[in-house]
Amino acid sequence: MADVIDVPLRDAEAEAAARSRQATLTKPAGALGRLEELACWVASVQGTCPPRAFGRIRAVIFAGDHGVAAAGVSAYPPEVTGQMVANFLAGGAAVNVLARQVVATVRVVDLAVDAELPAEISGFKVRRSSGHIDHEDALTPAQTEAAFAAGRSIADEEVDGGADLLIPGDMGIGNTTPCAVLVAALTDREAAALTGRGTGIDDAGWMRKVAVVRDALRRARRVAPDPMALLACAGGADLAAMTGFLVQAALRRTPVLLDGVVSATCAVLADSLAPGASQWWLAGSRSTEPAQQAALERLGLTPILDLGLRLGEGTGGLLAVPVLAAAVGTLAEMATFADAGVTDRA
Amino acid sequence: MADVIDVPLRDAEAEAAARSRQATLTKPAGALGRLEELACWVASVQGTCPPRAFGRIRAVIFAGDHGVAAAGVSAYPPEVTGQMVANFLAGGAAVNVLARQVVATVRVVDLAVDAELPAEISGFKVRRSSGHIDHEDALTPAQTEAAFAAGRSIADEEVDGGADLLIPGDMGIGNTTPCAVLVAALTDREAAALTGRGTGIDDAGWMRKVAVVRDALRRARRVAPDPMALLACAGGADLAAMTGFLVQAALRRTPVLLDGVVSATCAVLADSLAPGASQWWLAGSRSTEPAQQAALERLGLTPILDLGLRLGEGTGGLLAVPVLAAAVGTLAEMATFADAGVTDRA
Repeated sequence: MADVIDVPLRDAEAEAAARSRQATLTKPAGALGRLEELACWVASVQGTCPPRAFGRIRAVIFAGDHGVAAAGVSAYPPEVTGQMVANFLAGGAAVNVLARQVVATVRVVDLAVDAELPAEISGFKVRRSSGHIDHEDALTPAQTEAAFAAGRSIADEEVDGGADLLIPGDMGIGNTTPCAVLVAALTDREAAALTGRGTGIDDAGWMRKVAVVRDALRRARRVAPDPMALLACAGGADLAAMTGFLVQAALRRTPVLLDGVVSATCAVLADSLAPGASQWWLAGSRSTEPAQQAALERLGLTPILDLGLRLGEGTGGLLAVPVLAAAVGTLAEMATFADAGVTDRA
Repeated sequence: MADVIDVPLRDAEAEAAARSRQATLTKPAGALGRLEELACWVASVQGTCPPRAFGRIRAVIFAGDHGVAAAGVSAYPPEVTGQMVANFLAGGAAVNVLARQVVATVRVVDLAVDAELPAEISGFKVRRSSGHIDHEDALTPAQTEAAFAAGRSIADEEVDGGADLLIPGDMGIGNTTPCAVLVAALTDREAAALTGRGTGIDDAGWMRKVAVVRDALRRARRVAPDPMALLACAGGADLAAMTGFLVQAALRRTPVLLDGVVSATCAVLADSLAPGASQWWLAGSRSTEPAQQAALERLGLTPILDLGLRLGEGTGGLLAVPVLAAAVGTLAEMATFADAGVTDRA
């Protein structure tokens, strides 16, 4: 089992300064509710008070296919993964629209799509698809290490390129199935409790999916204490890479807005490998997938938004960006009682 | 009692076209959750599909003092109302920061502030402050009519000026007290159940406030079936004006994002005067004030955000603007399965 990775702490001094500043602003103390906490959190990750508006927000989509898709666990056929990657590159997907609205940019990385995709997004490709996790490993140990290292390199590239807020997105038909397995193994739950409807499967599809999750979980429970072994057993290259990305973002003191069930799953793995990494993350949106809720509970994270999303791609993270911007803006720009000549409470 | 005011219907054809369009976009059906409903709602209020991005968003703050503030129902002294109006005009309040972030503009109207304020915002002023509603009427019937008519004129000015999304805001120390009374009268609840902490009063302040609400409610229950009489008995000029504003916005087919407890209270009154007006409104943010929840339940509206706000000013409405923009953007800009060459489900 891998050594524990040390994670830096957030800046407690900047956070305390932010709390003090909140109390001077022209509003009743606490009247902005969760915005006030969020602003203090941003001050602590940036290490400065008042916090700065985010200048380079990046959604990074980890794309990969999953062998279990052949078992009929999704409402869509596996070729949609590669087709949607092309849609991301053309700017036509939901993630592209939401990114434009918050002046974020989108990067797609092909870790394991079961198709030949353009070279500029396939530099980190580990393999095509993954093993059928109900009866075989998703990845070899070497593939798992390679994908994890790829994710760390991608985070380094982003931070070196100036990213000051990262949003991990996912694309992969079938990917909620390994997530259900991984979270069930990590939180000791039953298959049926964490198996969701994914892209919108019917009852028969859900029963097939539960059977696959149950079989894979039987294999996965044996290696549950070891996150890298778990990723090899029941994950995939896209998930291993996103896990490495989350670990490295925390090491680089770069805040992350988590998205749906895939990023929440990888976040539990990353926080196991690098305890305390979760202090660098917020949960953007609640997903309808039960495994997301279980994963976020484990991490102690409460989603900022709850709008019934179940799309992935990074959309649930991007949607929360304006709330974070509002939090930062109010703390940074509001007048104080003294400056505005407003009488504070006695 | 006033005649019922007829309200136009939203455009069912545009809404149906929006629902059909949602099904063609490159995402699993329903995967954007509430965004999909919101986009269809915008199509129906704009009468066009795909809907347009909002081009002129206006937060209109109705400012007024309340006689009951003298009873110690707020954590802040009454002079803060006028001071905060000056802060709005200087651009230093939370509402100003949030408006800038969503490219909205802020208008402040003095209906009943207990101070001499600049002439450019006092053209609709009805009086200074209001009666002590625990033992006397807030307004005369003539003042109530004048304030209501002022609100209608303000809505007309905004719509004629090109506003395509309106957000009613409030400023008035003590104003959550009349709201608790009005909503309790309208929904037949008890004083203690709908009395909140407002700006953050302590237990002793809350007990004083409950006593005031209970006394005012005894007077208000007698006139509860008549919204205009209720506003005169236990409202205020700011509340009567906001009620007129909401009625007129619906008549002018202009969508409204409601804010906190004050706008929810006025919305119940406005929907009583103009049944069906609520179809033109969304609730932006859940407030911690119990009267807001009771009012929104009566209207059948579920807030888009739930972030523990209790500020008013329009902040809870403005915070929801990016979610609405995301809804509109995805419906208007996403690629279809056919255009993107993505395989749809069987």
